[in-house]
Amino acid sequence: MLYRLSELIRVFISQKERSFFLRLSEILGYFPHNINIYETAFVHKSASKTFSDGSLINNERLEYLGDAILDAVIADFLFNKFPRKDEGFLTQLRSKIVNRDMLNDLAINTGVSELVISFTSNCNHKYIYGDAFEAFIGAIYMDKGFKGTKNFILNKIIKPFIDINELIEKETDFKSRIIEWGQKNKQEINFTCVEEEASAENPPIFVSHIKILDKVLGEGTGNSKKEAEQNAAENALSKIDN
Amino acid sequence: MLYRLSELIRVFISQKERSFFLRLSEILGYFPHNINIYETAFVHKSASKTFSDGSLINNERLEYLGDAILDAVIADFLFNKFPRKDEGFLTQLRSKIVNRDMLNDLAINTGVSELVISFTSNCNHKYIYGDAFEAFIGAIYMDKGFKGTKNFILNKIIKPFIDINELIEKETDFKSRIIEWGQKNKQEINFTCVEEEASAENPPIFVSHIKILDKVLGEGTGNSKKEAEQNAAENALSKIDN
Repeated sequence: MLYRLSELIRVFISQKERSFFLRLSEILGYFPHNINIYETAFVHKSASKTFSDGSLINNERLEYLGDAILDAVIADFLFNKFPRKDEGFLTQLRSKIVNRDMLNDLAINTGVSELVISFTSNCNHKYIYGDAFEAFIGAIYMDKGFKGTKNFILNKIIKPFIDINELIEKETDFKSRIIEWGQKNKQEINFTCVEEEASAENPPIFVSHIKILDKVLGEGTGNSKKEAEQNAAENALSKIDN
Repeated sequence: MLYRLSELIRVFISQKERSFFLRLSEILGYFPHNINIYETAFVHKSASKTFSDGSLINNERLEYLGDAILDAVIADFLFNKFPRKDEGFLTQLRSKIVNRDMLNDLAINTGVSELVISFTSNCNHKYIYGDAFEAFIGAIYMDKGFKGTKNFILNKIIKPFIDINELIEKETDFKSRIIEWGQKNKQEINFTCVEEEASAENPPIFVSHIKILDKVLGEGTGNSKKEAEQNAAENALSKIDN
């Protein structure tokens, strides 16, 4: 006697599991094989379970894996899409796709965020969804391999949610963003920049600090004043955001 | 009439090309399909060729790709080899495998370094071989896909050249290394460390600077004084090494 998969699901798993399975399948566009690995991908560390040996089960290991797989897939995608662009262009464009804000947005847009289990309401954990999104990519990789993950990312993430041309145009101007933040929060932001002496062996390096009163909020180095300040502003923003 | 591949090679390609093809096949453990992509992987930017539209052909794009693919393969390998270790352990161990010194050594040990074409004798380009090694991984990925690259890295790189247990034991102590460098180069190294005020929202952050006389050589931040100093020392070493 033959059963449809949907009938087997109805018979063998609970209502809660069924609803998770169906929602997950909807996001993935296929029926997952290894449900456990996806379940783990959605467990924030605040909701960790414990192994018998005391080690924790949460999504941090899968986040580590997914982060690397996502980087590789996007690197491949951009490498082939822009055969005449140099590695500076490719690196910058990739960082616009895989930055934490974008990953958080993707988690929300795909519906991944609805599946996350977390017992924290702490504002410091702003990137719970983005981190879970990376873990989710790690789970797909464990379930379907590199090719399956690449297909998922290209068809279910990039095609519907990412406008590459818009990203190319978008200036990631951290300096403007930190100044804006200062104005909004009534804090005077000061930039200092020092050019370190160049030598025969080393090109000059610029070191920038961003201060509020006398407190260093961010620091960055670069081959130009502009680059150092951008890096310092990015560094400051990462501290504010986290 | 049937020909052996080796006969075809003898008939159709020059002595120089034949020798490259055979040496490459020896390193790879298989006959490559797409010779051009491997040739590009060995072209340092100092030996760039130029497209008709003015853009350059060298190994920097492949280095960008190979870097990401290598990271992903090593992430996968460690994730599966250490199922009970947390992401901190995995991240640290991976950075011991894919750091620039190790990649340079791997280029030399595998024979990749012998194939590199470079027109520079500049000491600033210390990592030409390591960079070419990453580009070589990028070329393998373009020729054989993710699975083929993973097989190559596991069987031809990790198994013969990397002692994982030794790496786990190895303390990456940047502070000792920068102090050692100072002694060797008769430079007094000073560490300063400032603890920034913590607030309800943010944990305390430590900022460390490494100075020679009054010149900042490196800087780093961390959640502890030790971590900030290690990061500052790593930052300083990266400037000295490059």
